Amino acid sequence: MKFFEDIRVGDADDIGHHTFLAEDIKSFAQRFDPQPFHVDDEAAARSHFGALCASGWHTAVVWMRLMVDHRRRAIEEQQARGEPVAAFGPALGFRDLKWLKPVYVGDTIAYRSEVVELRPSGSRPRWGLLTIRSTGTNQKGDLVISFVSTTLVERRPE
Amino acid sequence: MKFFEDIRVGDADDIGHHTFLAEDIKSFAQRFDPQPFHVDDEAAARSHFGALCASGWHTAVVWMRLMVDHRRRAIEEQQARGEPVAAFGPALGFRDLKWLKPVYVGDTIAYRSEVVELRPSGSRPRWGLLTIRSTGTNQKGDLVISFVSTTLVERRPE
Repeated sequence: MKFFEDIRVGDADDIGHHTFLAEDIKSFAQRFDPQPFHVDDEAAARSHFGALCASGWHTAVVWMRLMVDHRRRAIEEQQARGEPVAAFGPALGFRDLKWLKPVYVGDTIAYRSEVVELRPSGSRPRWGLLTIRSTGTNQKGDLVISFVSTTLVERRPE
Repeated sequence: MKFFEDIRVGDADDIGHHTFLAEDIKSFAQRFDPQPFHVDDEAAARSHFGALCASGWHTAVVWMRLMVDHRRRAIEEQQARGEPVAAFGPALGFRDLKWLKPVYVGDTIAYRSEVVELRPSGSRPRWGLLTIRSTGTNQKGDLVISFVSTTLVERRPE
């Protein structure tokens, strides 16, 4: 992770991509979102979605997984270059999460995060508040998910 | 599900509760949020959380699962009484999701949803927009998660 002072509004990262397979979609939904259009091909065909599609929560948590892997790679690269690595806190929450289009079997979603706001923390001088907008886009270029999240990032030591 | 016209702002439902066990927390996080404090007891003890705790996304998707089961029970009860059942659409998204406290091993989270806004849909005369605030509270009475979501609910046929 970069230090707060080394991040700029507009900085964007490709976080990774994921292809949603039928077994994947069904096993997530059986555990967490067992609505017919997420677990049963025939019921999905009769629904307003027209075919089996992923739970919106599934589309969101795949972003989380890719983001953890992305950060890990970035930290390893910094360490390999002998650079200091900034600490970061857990996400404090999310706002404006929108599921804009269904994610169907075989869709490949590319996730991207862009810095939209940077603000020093008023109460915690060691930290800055990093706000990013994250999106997922399918192979046809349609936006399927979008949300905004804020994380604490370490400031560069004086 | 009730029809739009039969729902009032302030109506509240206990959705269900869930006890987060260590195996549960780790298996979710290994797949979707493999940060050390969600998958490894010793690393969690050394982290700012002080002990193993659930991914915030896990706390959120357990609400989804309990909500699906809760709606299913409500629909079965309506059908048993011979009442008509309103259709409802998928969630369009959510806003203001906050993770307010960690969820530790053994914590039991009680989920509750309260109607905060009702608005007829401008573009879809068959539907109304139902906005609820959902919360999860642990066994000590601490709020651990809160978010607001909007769903389409069928209007009572004329």
